Amino acid sequence: MVRGRISRLSVRDVRFPTSLGGHGADAMHTDPDYSAAYVVIETDAEDGIKGCGITFTLGKGTEVVVCAVNALAHHVLNKDLKDIVGDFRGFYRQLTSDGQLRWIGPEKGVVHLATAAVLNAVWDLWAKQEGKPVWKLLVDMDPRMLVSCIDFRYITDVLTEEDALEILQKGQIGKKEREKQMLAQGYPAYTTSCAWLGYSDDTLKQLCAQALKDGWTSQRSQFPRARLFLFHLSALLSLQATSFPHCSSALLPSDSRLCRFKVKVGADLQDDMRRCQIIRDMIGPEKTLMMDANQRWDVPEAVEWMSKLAKFKPLWIEEPTSPDDILGHATISKALVPLGIGIATGEQCHNRVIFKQLLQAKALQFLQIDSCRLGSVNENLSVLLMAKKFEIPVCPHAGGVGLCELVQHLIIFDYISVSASLENRVCEYVDHLHEHFKYPVMIQRASYMPPKDPGYSTEMKEESVKKHQYPDGEVWKKLLPAQEN
Amino acid sequence: MVRGRISRLSVRDVRFPTSLGGHGADAMHTDPDYSAAYVVIETDAEDGIKGCGITFTLGKGTEVVVCAVNALAHHVLNKDLKDIVGDFRGFYRQLTSDGQLRWIGPEKGVVHLATAAVLNAVWDLWAKQEGKPVWKLLVDMDPRMLVSCIDFRYITDVLTEEDALEILQKGQIGKKEREKQMLAQGYPAYTTSCAWLGYSDDTLKQLCAQALKDGWTSQRSQFPRARLFLFHLSALLSLQATSFPHCSSALLPSDSRLCRFKVKVGADLQDDMRRCQIIRDMIGPEKTLMMDANQRWDVPEAVEWMSKLAKFKPLWIEEPTSPDDILGHATISKALVPLGIGIATGEQCHNRVIFKQLLQAKALQFLQIDSCRLGSVNENLSVLLMAKKFEIPVCPHAGGVGLCELVQHLIIFDYISVSASLENRVCEYVDHLHEHFKYPVMIQRASYMPPKDPGYSTEMKEESVKKHQYPDGEVWKKLLPAQEN
Repeated sequence: MVRGRISRLSVRDVRFPTSLGGHGADAMHTDPDYSAAYVVIETDAEDGIKGCGITFTLGKGTEVVVCAVNALAHHVLNKDLKDIVGDFRGFYRQLTSDGQLRWIGPEKGVVHLATAAVLNAVWDLWAKQEGKPVWKLLVDMDPRMLVSCIDFRYITDVLTEEDALEILQKGQIGKKEREKQMLAQGYPAYTTSCAWLGYSDDTLKQLCAQALKDGWTSQRSQFPRARLFLFHLSALLSLQATSFPHCSSALLPSDSRLCRFKVKVGADLQDDMRRCQIIRDMIGPEKTLMMDANQRWDVPEAVEWMSKLAKFKPLWIEEPTSPDDILGHATISKALVPLGIGIATGEQCHNRVIFKQLLQAKALQFLQIDSCRLGSVNENLSVLLMAKKFEIPVCPHAGGVGLCELVQHLIIFDYISVSASLENRVCEYVDHLHEHFKYPVMIQRASYMPPKDPGYSTEMKEESVKKHQYPDGEVWKKLLPAQEN
Repeated sequence: MVRGRISRLSVRDVRFPTSLGGHGADAMHTDPDYSAAYVVIETDAEDGIKGCGITFTLGKGTEVVVCAVNALAHHVLNKDLKDIVGDFRGFYRQLTSDGQLRWIGPEKGVVHLATAAVLNAVWDLWAKQEGKPVWKLLVDMDPRMLVSCIDFRYITDVLTEEDALEILQKGQIGKKEREKQMLAQGYPAYTTSCAWLGYSDDTLKQLCAQALKDGWTSQRSQFPRARLFLFHLSALLSLQATSFPHCSSALLPSDSRLCRFKVKVGADLQDDMRRCQIIRDMIGPEKTLMMDANQRWDVPEAVEWMSKLAKFKPLWIEEPTSPDDILGHATISKALVPLGIGIATGEQCHNRVIFKQLLQAKALQFLQIDSCRLGSVNENLSVLLMAKKFEIPVCPHAGGVGLCELVQHLIIFDYISVSASLENRVCEYVDHLHEHFKYPVMIQRASYMPPKDPGYSTEMKEESVKKHQYPDGEVWKKLLPAQEN
């Protein structure tokens, strides 16, 4: 089935002006313009099939990632797709171990984001040629073939090829049933109804009340109000989600599983105490409350602060400190787990070596993979398998541009072929910018429904790309002169 | 003294075609073209003083770092130098925490290398305006001012501002004497007379014999032969050091301290055993032998391999595994220290958070800072202070392009004001590409002599820059068409 030689690679800088309203940012990322380096690869197979890949960025710096993609392009061009996927481990190693480019990584930051974009395009191309969505391609793949996609360098002290094979072979048991279950019910999602730092107490109360009132239960009749609430939030967050073009109301959240509140903390302790009290009072003792510090704290500060917020019973504290600080997360985890608070992190963990250590050090209780920061499906496979070995639930990070589209493939595969469990597991969902994708996510009854279109759901609408290309797209041509004045 | 507003920032891609001969590479960096992103900042002070900064790269990818420097430039332009150095911590934080650019780091890889280049230029400018070399600027600086240059975020569990101040205040005792000592004797250096993987046994024997015979003792009369040996090695290593233009023979190594052999290991165990036996037989039991694996191994492999090489009594094994693997280094260290082997690492450790953990986990016995990977003087200060707190000797990484020029300032300051010790400490020295710098390092009696010219020794000769600019410089205009054929 696999055919053709890669004859062309193009990469574009696509930005959405999400920072305009000034809301929705977190403490560390104050003015995000949700963006992507968008890669398209073509072959000489003359079948009209293109592979599309993205990596997510926040505006400025997308051009740096674009530059890195161009630096990697020669590893892809003129290669037969058959040779790439036939020795995917070797190809992964080639991309990540380029004798000159390796120095400016290795396997981290800009070059690794670029690697992700390129490999995401290769997976999209492969799956399209096979006529399957990526999750299905993975589910149907022989365990030995899956293992051959993974570079085990630097993780064999925790996961060997044999370990991986054993996990995947065990995962074959009951696979068919789980696949059916996914096709019927989907993978549980949660929407971050986020209490941002800037909100006044009154706004907070109002939002909580509205959320509780509007559709966060399972009555289907309340969908329109749930939509309104989502819209209201999105508008506040300045995500410019003026509509939900791909969601009919039948597809909107209908399940109390969605009723999770995430509160941003870390700026001022007294303020956090008051806000958490308001939210807990409003939502009651049973509903799930999560906290997110967006890397604001040093280690002692995280422990002290969260010890004081423990009485509000958060499920987890997300990103309490530097994403590089494995031992720091372990210290925080050791202090907070006895208080009933788990540690969640991962969206900025830069490679499998970091995840390996977080698991070894018992430094997290919820592992948040990201589809565009690690080296595509290949590296995420290794992380899913390590998480399985340590029995740590994976709760993917999503949102941004296209992160939901991509990560659903990984987590659906994880359930069917690796974890075989939904316990303590949910996949983040944010409802914005999906309208720019050709195959947007489908949410039904608060769940990600398995995509049916071939590929990795990464293809953007050409019209959207053209309009939002930076700095020459129509949107930016209008905005840039205005910003300069 | 500090004056002017930054009115211009330029950055150039400067590459030296060091890969041409195919030698001198290591297992992971197979074809390095030693390169730099070279930043020049100018002010409106009309004093003709420019600040020059570099970060080191290996050829391809320099253009990506250049792109990142341009993305950072707006943080520097139109700032008063007085405001920058008056709140250097704040400025550092601003550069490393840009709300959009942070996502493609944070503080790692391309954006952090770019940050280093920009900040190195700021330090050069500052020191030039003060009429002092950077090491002297630091030595003369009030401890409170030094501390105000450091961003303590994410390291306060190991080093607080108060800890840092205490260390620096203790460092005041005996400072004058140590400064005099440095000015008279310099800081001990070692040249890596490296037994590269590709060498035949005969070449190895010949090189050892020649090294032992030629000037690695203290007889001054043997300098010319030592020069010849260095040249011979350099030629083999394809570093194109066809001369030592800035070194009179009186400045060449004259001390047995230089007689350290570093052998590259990790490709084949039997091969390593045989080569190490040859070297040990030739150099005798007393001389220092170091081993360097260049990140080749996984953790269990590193322990197994080095346990077998322990009988050759290496001082250290350098970079046994991934630079991100703190727990891995700790495991290796735990196994090898009882065998008398230390762990050395640092040249690819991407920020202070990684160094903090390596120290916390007792994962290294020799800490190898790099002047161009961390965030310039500011971040290196924090690492020097943490190393002091843990009493771990700092043995800087150098070589490449300009790394010797820069790091000498840091290590001389470290001795005078922080560590106050030379025990187990040496600074790497490689004799190539210095001729392209306006203020090249001065080596006397196997020691780095403290630079006397104002600045950070980062300024390159304009002629060299022009000639080696990629791809339009004269050197590349000739080479590129030849390489394409």
